[in-house]
Amino acid sequence: MTIKAYGAHAGDQPLQPLDITRRAPGAHDVQIEIVYCGICHSDIHQVRAEWAGTLFPCVPGHEIVGRVAAVGAHVSNHKAGDLVGVGCIVDSCQHCADCDDGLENYCDHMVGTYNGPTQDAPGHTLGGYSQQIVVHERYVLRIRHAEAQLAAVAPLLCAGITTYSPLRHWKIGPGHKVGVVGIGGLGHMGIKLAHAMGAHVVAFTTSESKRKAALALGANEVVVSRNADEMAVHAKSFDFILNTVAVAHDLDPFFALLKRDGTMTLVGAPATPHSSPDVFGLIMKRRSLAGSMIGGIPETQEMLDFCAEHGIVADIEMIRADQINDAYERMLKGDVKYRFVMDIATMNA
Amino acid sequence: MTIKAYGAHAGDQPLQPLDITRRAPGAHDVQIEIVYCGICHSDIHQVRAEWAGTLFPCVPGHEIVGRVAAVGAHVSNHKAGDLVGVGCIVDSCQHCADCDDGLENYCDHMVGTYNGPTQDAPGHTLGGYSQQIVVHERYVLRIRHAEAQLAAVAPLLCAGITTYSPLRHWKIGPGHKVGVVGIGGLGHMGIKLAHAMGAHVVAFTTSESKRKAALALGANEVVVSRNADEMAVHAKSFDFILNTVAVAHDLDPFFALLKRDGTMTLVGAPATPHSSPDVFGLIMKRRSLAGSMIGGIPETQEMLDFCAEHGIVADIEMIRADQINDAYERMLKGDVKYRFVMDIATMNA
Ligand SMILES: [Zn+2]
Ligand SMILES: [Zn+2]
Ligand SMILES: [Zn+2]
Ligand SMILES: [Zn+2]
Repeated sequence: MTIKAYGAHAGDQPLQPLDITRRAPGAHDVQIEIVYCGICHSDIHQVRAEWAGTLFPCVPGHEIVGRVAAVGAHVSNHKAGDLVGVGCIVDSCQHCADCDDGLENYCDHMVGTYNGPTQDAPGHTLGGYSQQIVVHERYVLRIRHAEAQLAAVAPLLCAGITTYSPLRHWKIGPGHKVGVVGIGGLGHMGIKLAHAMGAHVVAFTTSESKRKAALALGANEVVVSRNADEMAVHAKSFDFILNTVAVAHDLDPFFALLKRDGTMTLVGAPATPHSSPDVFGLIMKRRSLAGSMIGGIPETQEMLDFCAEHGIVADIEMIRADQINDAYERMLKGDVKYRFVMDIATMNA
Repeated sequence: MTIKAYGAHAGDQPLQPLDITRRAPGAHDVQIEIVYCGICHSDIHQVRAEWAGTLFPCVPGHEIVGRVAAVGAHVSNHKAGDLVGVGCIVDSCQHCADCDDGLENYCDHMVGTYNGPTQDAPGHTLGGYSQQIVVHERYVLRIRHAEAQLAAVAPLLCAGITTYSPLRHWKIGPGHKVGVVGIGGLGHMGIKLAHAMGAHVVAFTTSESKRKAALALGANEVVVSRNADEMAVHAKSFDFILNTVAVAHDLDPFFALLKRDGTMTLVGAPATPHSSPDVFGLIMKRRSLAGSMIGGIPETQEMLDFCAEHGIVADIEMIRADQINDAYERMLKGDVKYRFVMDIATMNA
């Protein structure tokens, strides 16, 4: 089946309309009519070949929501008409310790929703800036939000799970003081989720102008991290800091805010290294620096259900498919509150 | 009371005999006749003013073992004649969350055995290169090893607890694969302790010549870390790595050896920073980099009892007090297996 998509033929070219093909659904496949796709920073890095190994044509997009069009003979959890989502993962080995633990995101053979290896033409996966996608049932999530919220659910599939997974793994809940560094696509979800989990949430931003917005998202306090005095007030007081900033920066001022046994977890990988952490800062209070990548499929379902129950969606700005190149430029300037979502219906315009 | 000690008057001067005073024991104090004192790398850094804020005269030494000479009126856990030890800590606030948790090592007001603030003359604490010490009962440990082992027990008070505490905190036991990086004073204790806890222990060294010695200490395997092929065999296989190397080095090859959710804990702080960790290496498998400093008083007692039960002591080389400056030079060349211990009786020679 041939469908419309948006993608690029080379790292230095803008995205443009493309025709791509999808496989006929196999026995375990779900064929999905995509309604919306969120726009993630990873999309930009990958399609512009800023990360190693981009394969062209490249069709980004891994915050996919839509409606089941058809299912294979052995699919029992999904049926035509269901609202479903697909995130960053469309395949994995299905038999390693990570897959067995429902942490397909850490499987050595995890296949990304775009730029991953596949038997399908053209030999690598093509993402959600497209009208349809065909995905093994294991990697298809049920959406229980109201249909009217569907566009704002899309970013949960990457930004939501990427922040939810570490908050859950480090067992955040009532009585915890949690920092969220960076108030962008990831950070705004981190604030909402940590708040809904019952934590006392402090948002860190470099920009005074984001103070009000962060409070509106659910932060109990906002700290401008460039202000050393404001930072000092919070010394040694945090159980956990979720650092969503994917630009190299000095981590030490944040370590100083962690209690004994506190952890700062990075969910973004900068193109150039952060400054080397001060080892004394780690040793003196048995602090940890950790990383976390997306989340597993079962916890992605858990996150979607948690968000449906707590009325959580992303704050979005809708774009037409043909606005994607402008949207990228605005994202790079931080000019979006907080996630662009592409209306896939506009590909037919 | 005036006693003999070894110390320095300035960072650029050798250690020499000094006369110092100790306070008369208060109601909660234990007066200890020191029999042996282990020699720690920290002693060198401090007495040579390589770390900030060394106070002179400086008498190093925080691996102290000896015999109780007298106890204050309110001391009930120790009595004259008991074999006891004093480690890196001689005081703390005694009422913060860390102290309440028995983690006096993380108390903001922890007082080191030397170079810490005190009311006693000369206004800072003086360590174990001396004939006697007077310490609050809370910080005095009971030694249950045979008296003949006393000298080899001394290094447990710093090198032992510094490696025991993280192994316990990260719950090492049977079924775990544990790496110990560096086979020196700390590392050789890490190998013995992790082995006794039932872990599969892999020792990492930069020097081919240490292979046999590491096996003799209890390592199941030895890897020469400069050999990339040898390292690659162990990719993604470790639950925990205890890194005892206090010299700046590249941490990334060790992260690559950690399983999902594995932690590498640093117990040494280098004078110059390590290279900045590759964030992808952390994120891809939810790995952690942590620090750990010494251990609390209750766990120090637990460690001493564990070692007594398992027949664990340090491998030592005894020195006379007047050999201390030579011993420092040999330590800096790595020429000691694995810890020097000063025979305090030689101060009377
Ligand atoms: Zn993403
Ligand atoms: Zn797998
Ligand atoms: Zn020491
Ligand atoms: Zn305290």
